[in-house]
Amino acid sequence: MRTRAAVALEAGKPLEVMEVNLDGPKAGEVLVEIKATGICHTDEFTLSGADPEGMFPAILGHEGAGVVVEVGEGVTSLEVGDHVIPLYTPECRECEYCLNPKTNLCQKIRSTQGAGVMPDGTSRFSMLDGTPILHYMGCSTFSNHTVLPEIALAKVRKDAPFDKICYIGCGVTTGIGAVINTAKVEIGSRAIVFGLGGIGLNVIQGLRLAGADQIVGVDLNPGKVEMAKRFGMTDFVNPNDVKGDMVAHLVELTQGGADYTFDATGNVQVMRTALEAAHKGWGESIIIGVAPAGAEISTRPFQLVTGRSWRGTAFGGARGRTDVPKIVDWYMDGKIEIDPMITHTMPLEDINKGFDLMHEGKSIRAVVEF
Amino acid sequence: MRTRAAVALEAGKPLEVMEVNLDGPKAGEVLVEIKATGICHTDEFTLSGADPEGMFPAILGHEGAGVVVEVGEGVTSLEVGDHVIPLYTPECRECEYCLNPKTNLCQKIRSTQGAGVMPDGTSRFSMLDGTPILHYMGCSTFSNHTVLPEIALAKVRKDAPFDKICYIGCGVTTGIGAVINTAKVEIGSRAIVFGLGGIGLNVIQGLRLAGADQIVGVDLNPGKVEMAKRFGMTDFVNPNDVKGDMVAHLVELTQGGADYTFDATGNVQVMRTALEAAHKGWGESIIIGVAPAGAEISTRPFQLVTGRSWRGTAFGGARGRTDVPKIVDWYMDGKIEIDPMITHTMPLEDINKGFDLMHEGKSIRAVVEF
Ligand SMILES: [Zn+2]
Ligand SMILES: [Zn+2]
Ligand SMILES: [Zn+2]
Ligand SMILES: [Zn+2]
Repeated sequence: MRTRAAVALEAGKPLEVMEVNLDGPKAGEVLVEIKATGICHTDEFTLSGADPEGMFPAILGHEGAGVVVEVGEGVTSLEVGDHVIPLYTPECRECEYCLNPKTNLCQKIRSTQGAGVMPDGTSRFSMLDGTPILHYMGCSTFSNHTVLPEIALAKVRKDAPFDKICYIGCGVTTGIGAVINTAKVEIGSRAIVFGLGGIGLNVIQGLRLAGADQIVGVDLNPGKVEMAKRFGMTDFVNPNDVKGDMVAHLVELTQGGADYTFDATGNVQVMRTALEAAHKGWGESIIIGVAPAGAEISTRPFQLVTGRSWRGTAFGGARGRTDVPKIVDWYMDGKIEIDPMITHTMPLEDINKGFDLMHEGKSIRAVVEF
Repeated sequence: MRTRAAVALEAGKPLEVMEVNLDGPKAGEVLVEIKATGICHTDEFTLSGADPEGMFPAILGHEGAGVVVEVGEGVTSLEVGDHVIPLYTPECRECEYCLNPKTNLCQKIRSTQGAGVMPDGTSRFSMLDGTPILHYMGCSTFSNHTVLPEIALAKVRKDAPFDKICYIGCGVTTGIGAVINTAKVEIGSRAIVFGLGGIGLNVIQGLRLAGADQIVGVDLNPGKVEMAKRFGMTDFVNPNDVKGDMVAHLVELTQGGADYTFDATGNVQVMRTALEAAHKGWGESIIIGVAPAGAEISTRPFQLVTGRSWRGTAFGGARGRTDVPKIVDWYMDGKIEIDPMITHTMPLEDINKGFDLMHEGKSIRAVVEF
């Protein structure tokens, strides 16, 4: 079939919206009509050329929602008409990782996904002249239709709006999951969140959901305060306003250090501050942000020997097929909010404007509706 | 009263064995006759002058066992004749830390202990000319008699030999506790232990006790192999014999990385190797060794984001009054071994020979018997 997609032809260039060929689903695969997709910093990271693993031409996008159009041979968990959210972290439920309750990092299709192809080693996308186009993060949601492995699709309820729940495919789950799956924050905890972008806001609402008593937000931009408060922030710290040592300031504000700290900046110096602002004896610091290639975190080992833990999270520690449908329910039940974070919507033709809004810091999340 | 002690008069000089004055126990304090004490690298660290917090003159030693001779006003948990092990990490059972199940770092008397005095701010020790002598780690076991706060004494069974159980006051509990309290190693785990000195051997026997399937020991000295095997090591790796990348070698040997890794070297580069040799998705690396002042650990945050955790432990995460008596029972029941690790014993007069043996790498543990 033919479908319409925004194609990343090469690094550093705007996407080009065009007709492309899409082969039907092979065994274990599913053809999905994408109804909406968010534009994420990770797409930008790859498009810019900064991602050392980026490959072109490719169809980017990993934060979508849509409807099953066709299922390949042997697909048993999905049928035509099901509403689904693509998963860049799949859940096969049979690999060594899926069977270990301590991790969500399913490795079943990792190598082919990293190579931009389906599990059989080939791409379903091609130019009208036949040139293959690579998949991206196993999702390629910047296309009106896409093919995914069955294990990379979460089936969700049909009454949930696509233009909101697409964000659950990345930022919402990453932020909330970091709190509830990775940190397992207890009621009454004190926490600090570094970076009040989309991920940070979702960490904040995860902390509110978990019953945290104190939720400190840290950001250089005071323009972020209003939205962060809306999602549950109780205290704001602008590092520019802190005289003296930032760690000491945060430790005092949290009466000895935070039980949990979260880095959503990707800045390795901030990651160190986050660790050291965690409470002696039991504080845990969780890295969510993606650091520039080659950047390293450092601290004195004394920080760990006196009881702090340094950890990280990917896709919020969520097992997508199991956990994403629950998060959709929480949204529909009003336990979490997404609507205020979807600040812009646009048709596929205007997708490059969505990237511009992100660059300019004007959007929390821009969503393309098909 | 007067007692005999090895006094550290100044940094970098041998200890001097002499008569000193010892005041009786004040309220909440206990006078203990030390029957045996180990000589530990931490004593050496302070005596050498490398410890930035070292103060002199002081009576070092923190790894003892003895008998209660007199109790001060208000002491209720101990009586004359009780056998005890001094605790440099006390357990008050009422501070914010003792009441938090996630930590063992009781803070009740931390500031005075760090200042080399009893909780009332004064020292019980003095020279015969009246010059005060400082306490050390709240223990000062290099003295035939010493005074400690009640909360810094674990009461243990009377049939256990002092010259063996004194080691439970530091190295045994640190190593075994790192496995069972901090890492909480599960049956069937794979583990790597870096550094096969006294702490490393106790980590190894802790892993055996916990039912680990694979226990890899790493050390530059092949002379350590025989003893490490005796305590449960299943595989030995000498970094000098590894061609190519050490992390890759260890990951292959443990079939994907170890579930738990332990640094007992204090070398920050080894700490990095230990973290990176932990299994993707769930591996935990525990820092036990004390690094040189100012040294820092580093890694790429990707190591944490892909599921490894970096943690530390002090006194093996043990709550001394509660856990140390249990470890004494394990020793008496033959669940753990100590005897082969006590390689040398000597009278107090020869204590400097014990330090020499440690320098020369000839002892695992030298013990002074009074
Ligand atoms: Zn994303
Ligand atoms: Zn899997
Ligand atoms: Zn020691
Ligand atoms: Zn306490």
